[in-house]
Amino acid sequence: MAEKTWVRMVTAQTPTNIAVIKYWGKRDETLILPVNDSISVTLDPAHLCTITTVAVSPSFDQDRMWLNGKEISLSGGRYQNCLREIRARACEVEDKEKGIKIAKNDWEKLHVHVASYNNFPTAAGLASSAAGFACLVFALAKLMKAKEDNSELSAIARQGSGSACRSLFGGFVKWIMGKAEDGSDSLAVQLVDEKHWDELVIIIAVVSSRQKETSSTTGMRDSVETSLLLQHRAKEVVPKRIKQMEEAIKNRDFGSFAQLTCADSNQFHAVCLDTCPPIFYMNDTSHRIISCVEKWNCSEGTPQVAYTFDAGPNAVLIAHNRKAATQLIQKLLFCFPPSSDADLNSYVIGDKSILKDAGIEDIEDVEALPPPPEIKDAQRCKGDVSYFICTKPGRGPDLLSDESLALLHPETGLPK
Amino acid sequence: MAEKTWVRMVTAQTPTNIAVIKYWGKRDETLILPVNDSISVTLDPAHLCTITTVAVSPSFDQDRMWLNGKEISLSGGRYQNCLREIRARACEVEDKEKGIKIAKNDWEKLHVHVASYNNFPTAAGLASSAAGFACLVFALAKLMKAKEDNSELSAIARQGSGSACRSLFGGFVKWIMGKAEDGSDSLAVQLVDEKHWDELVIIIAVVSSRQKETSSTTGMRDSVETSLLLQHRAKEVVPKRIKQMEEAIKNRDFGSFAQLTCADSNQFHAVCLDTCPPIFYMNDTSHRIISCVEKWNCSEGTPQVAYTFDAGPNAVLIAHNRKAATQLIQKLLFCFPPSSDADLNSYVIGDKSILKDAGIEDIEDVEALPPPPEIKDAQRCKGDVSYFICTKPGRGPDLLSDESLALLHPETGLPK
Repeated sequence: MAEKTWVRMVTAQTPTNIAVIKYWGKRDETLILPVNDSISVTLDPAHLCTITTVAVSPSFDQDRMWLNGKEISLSGGRYQNCLREIRARACEVEDKEKGIKIAKNDWEKLHVHVASYNNFPTAAGLASSAAGFACLVFALAKLMKAKEDNSELSAIARQGSGSACRSLFGGFVKWIMGKAEDGSDSLAVQLVDEKHWDELVIIIAVVSSRQKETSSTTGMRDSVETSLLLQHRAKEVVPKRIKQMEEAIKNRDFGSFAQLTCADSNQFHAVCLDTCPPIFYMNDTSHRIISCVEKWNCSEGTPQVAYTFDAGPNAVLIAHNRKAATQLIQKLLFCFPPSSDADLNSYVIGDKSILKDAGIEDIEDVEALPPPPEIKDAQRCKGDVSYFICTKPGRGPDLLSDESLALLHPETGLPK
Repeated sequence: MAEKTWVRMVTAQTPTNIAVIKYWGKRDETLILPVNDSISVTLDPAHLCTITTVAVSPSFDQDRMWLNGKEISLSGGRYQNCLREIRARACEVEDKEKGIKIAKNDWEKLHVHVASYNNFPTAAGLASSAAGFACLVFALAKLMKAKEDNSELSAIARQGSGSACRSLFGGFVKWIMGKAEDGSDSLAVQLVDEKHWDELVIIIAVVSSRQKETSSTTGMRDSVETSLLLQHRAKEVVPKRIKQMEEAIKNRDFGSFAQLTCADSNQFHAVCLDTCPPIFYMNDTSHRIISCVEKWNCSEGTPQVAYTFDAGPNAVLIAHNRKAATQLIQKLLFCFPPSSDADLNSYVIGDKSILKDAGIEDIEDVEALPPPPEIKDAQRCKGDVSYFICTKPGRGPDLLSDESLALLHPETGLPK
């Protein structure tokens, strides 16, 4: 090993993902093995991603981590699982220029620093742990020159947070539940990349909520233990839906895609409700968004938009194409205008070109929007939505070679 | 037949009922045959009932009906089914005093007048159609001297509104789904009468709602056609629950009763959510009521209160005994105080002695209530509940012999 002064760093960026066929229920709590396959779409990291810098140095005397600038403990089993699995796969690293040489065996003794941040509000319930664990595992693997491909890495990220395994790829991703007891075959594969179906537009409604939600870990456990519908869903319903969904994605068949996505989101929430005590993730605002979409899809005769909700009240709306997305944002802004003190610029974030296409430039344009004709007595509910994010399907993890993006100082290995 | 001047009348009162194992889904739409058995508790008619007067006279030239004072059409299939079936079972009626003699065959030619009213707000979504059809069939049967017992009458009321069949008895009632294609064995039987478990206290929270609800007829049909969980519930889950519920009722085992009642209500709403398009009957207020009850039951270690929701946001809360009911009303009034302009007298109706036991006499007592210790940061949500009804399990249909209670004029046969 070289002198004690060097710090070796890697910075990576990893997207979030949203399941269109849901994961709900573990058959193994420790290894995080699911009761059914799931399929997700990866969201554009430009709008929703985690950036993580991992550093190693002989000067570090313990593993440490900072999340969004605040130090957090790495002692939890989920972090320890990821660190242990990647360390076990670490290889020799040599950087002659910097005079660094780390032998395979050195990794067991060396400590790492990790700094991670989300480019979106963490409190919004937008699957930050999925992107976070995926990014941690991806970055550590690059730092330690692990030779595993992204599917193999996904099986490690899975042990941090189940849905994290699906964030190792862009486009549409399938998490195969696997059969092996050790979980080695429970991993993610890419179905199609983000270019395959690039006309889709995604609008996320971040819904205001009074209630503290049940964590998905606790909720899932309660559902497995008490819901009499969960096993039927896992064994009888999902396997067929997975096949139909793969077909719909392959053929860019939006009608089938939307029908399956909405039905599966609703069924996941049905299982939550069938849990004892019941779990409610959606609230009245979520219900109203569903009702808007259902009425519009029904009036058009063919689905324009699919909706899906994770373990919280936020709606993820997937529009068939740009035209549908433009109409959608108009309907959404009619029904859910910003509160009087909000400005439009922070109320609709992400890809603002959708707003422009919709002819909405300022708050007066929002006020002048006509009521959606398919909704009788459409009410305007100010303040029920916190903000909207316009985005699209996106690519998988990336290494960021630009050192200025690193979150740790290149000499101290501490947060910048 | 005697002269054209006479009017023969019968007035009856029939209770509403609330299912504790739910009916959701028909296997035959016309005959109203369900996909599973259900069990209900009959509510005290003193607080929730329908009163119906039926009259026959040779001077009537058509069948007519008035509901809550307003004439409505009897041409619908459901009314016609009930009228036809009772007429087919009519017997000879003779009243020598009044000089009335109606031969069996005369009933086919004679017309009836029906006047019906609910002693509770119809718009509240409190199963008025169940009590209404039960009362219509019961009163007509008495008028026409049909010899059928209440179980046989229940199979006729069922053809008006499925759950109406359970309103032909007091106490706890089971609707046996039956097997016969003609529906003849799909009828209600009494499990135990209202005296068997007389310590139970029922509090209904009539919840304010912005949304128009899906009718249960439409909702049920959509669920049967689209929910992939409904058949599993009907075939695998409910048969076991029916047995367990019968056992719990027989043994007055409140713990099992509450667990089954809550789980089955939640599963019914889960099936609604699994329907395409999804049906939401409960709203945020319903969820908050469930959360209050669940937290309290959990903190006590043993259930104090069971909750159940029908096709709407109203909560029906069944307390183990008077002590639990007293605590329940205190907790409910803390969380859901009346709006500033409401007076307590019209905010808590029915059996007001529960309020008295709870030491609540006026609005100042409500304001002084302490927050339920088991709810962290308990919020007070004014206006989310319209009013509460305090009641208990009650008896079945009754004939009202007091002529002053009749809704039709004894000479004209028209509404008083």
